[in-house]
Amino acid sequence: MERVPLQQKVLSENDRIAMELRARFQERGILCLNFVSSPGSGKTSLLERTLASVPNGERIAVLTGDIQTENDATRLQRFHFPVKQITTGGTCHLDARMIERHLADWPLNRLDLLLIENVGNLVCPASYDLGEAAKIVVLSVAEGDDKPLKYPSIFLKSDLMVVNKVDLLPYVPFDVNTAVNNARRIHPQMEFIRVSCLSGEGLDEWLSWLQKRRNAQKLLHHETVC
Amino acid sequence: MERVPLQQKVLSENDRIAMELRARFQERGILCLNFVSSPGSGKTSLLERTLASVPNGERIAVLTGDIQTENDATRLQRFHFPVKQITTGGTCHLDARMIERHLADWPLNRLDLLLIENVGNLVCPASYDLGEAAKIVVLSVAEGDDKPLKYPSIFLKSDLMVVNKVDLLPYVPFDVNTAVNNARRIHPQMEFIRVSCLSGEGLDEWLSWLQKRRNAQKLLHHETVC
Repeated sequence: MERVPLQQKVLSENDRIAMELRARFQERGILCLNFVSSPGSGKTSLLERTLASVPNGERIAVLTGDIQTENDATRLQRFHFPVKQITTGGTCHLDARMIERHLADWPLNRLDLLLIENVGNLVCPASYDLGEAAKIVVLSVAEGDDKPLKYPSIFLKSDLMVVNKVDLLPYVPFDVNTAVNNARRIHPQMEFIRVSCLSGEGLDEWLSWLQKRRNAQKLLHHETVC
Repeated sequence: MERVPLQQKVLSENDRIAMELRARFQERGILCLNFVSSPGSGKTSLLERTLASVPNGERIAVLTGDIQTENDATRLQRFHFPVKQITTGGTCHLDARMIERHLADWPLNRLDLLLIENVGNLVCPASYDLGEAAKIVVLSVAEGDDKPLKYPSIFLKSDLMVVNKVDLLPYVPFDVNTAVNNARRIHPQMEFIRVSCLSGEGLDEWLSWLQKRRNAQKLLHHETVC
């Protein structure tokens, strides 16, 4: 059985759709972010805090992936932005075709920020480009500061590491500097922000990072159009 | 492209090797346990606590899986039982062939307990039988009590749920009863034990569960032999 060519074919099919999605997002000035993490690191909480902090008129939408349940979409719909659940029914990651399919009936010209919450998995989502401008990896301090070395691929491919649940730092053996150094051994340009979605610590810095990326995307959009 | 038959072929290859491993373990009276969880839930800590609690003469060995690093094996080797690291180099789960290969030069007749620590991933390891007598799912309270509903397959296939890091319960929104009820909605026979590998709470109950399973395996072994 020839295994490698098949894998290449599957990957290139995903990559082709991701490239098309990326082109569509850039054309319309949409910043697309792909949030990845272990189960229970706080992706949904970070999105809740984000949606709660922006005015209702903002052009934001969310796609949220899970193996089962629509719980995350239910949590996120409270903020009155468009939210769709992608239930993968067993698949351990989102892929570009799922994104394409779930965007089919959404008017993209009414958006400038698309937030994608991936399935909780620190391994497989690293291999599937969704057409995003950047991956953001969320790491809970309860998981341990060694995780970037043990799951290098996802840290290599993420622009930003959000160290979440810092309110738990007094109670867990986790050193933020060690985590950041470990992440930068894999990915020297890794940015990082420490937050607590429970206490609110660090959220200003996160929102400011997000705003900078949105501004940059708008500049890029104008450049493309002119 | 016919996708289902190929997947069936891959799965049945794994299942065939897993069946052979299971037969070898049963023949020799070896209890094999497969520990699964999200990254950072505390599988290695639970194994450390377990190895620290048993006398040196016990016939125990450990296989520990990770994408990268030999950190877990280094941590576990301190207890002077045979330990081997399986570094998958990107693969998101252990499979039966990896187990078979890493057991090849180990004298199985000197063992009666084989502990396998899977790659940290709450999705993919559910699909790969390693020939174990039981899967044990470790869930850290920092991950949230909704996880059994969101990752049902791994909870369905595990005999025991170890709720770990209960020392963090005062600081996180996690209700143990809700977690257990959610797990039992998926798997009504699910046993559970609450532990803290940091404070030591609940470890007696875990060690007693383990001893019961070892005793049962010995009885089964004698029955097979007679």
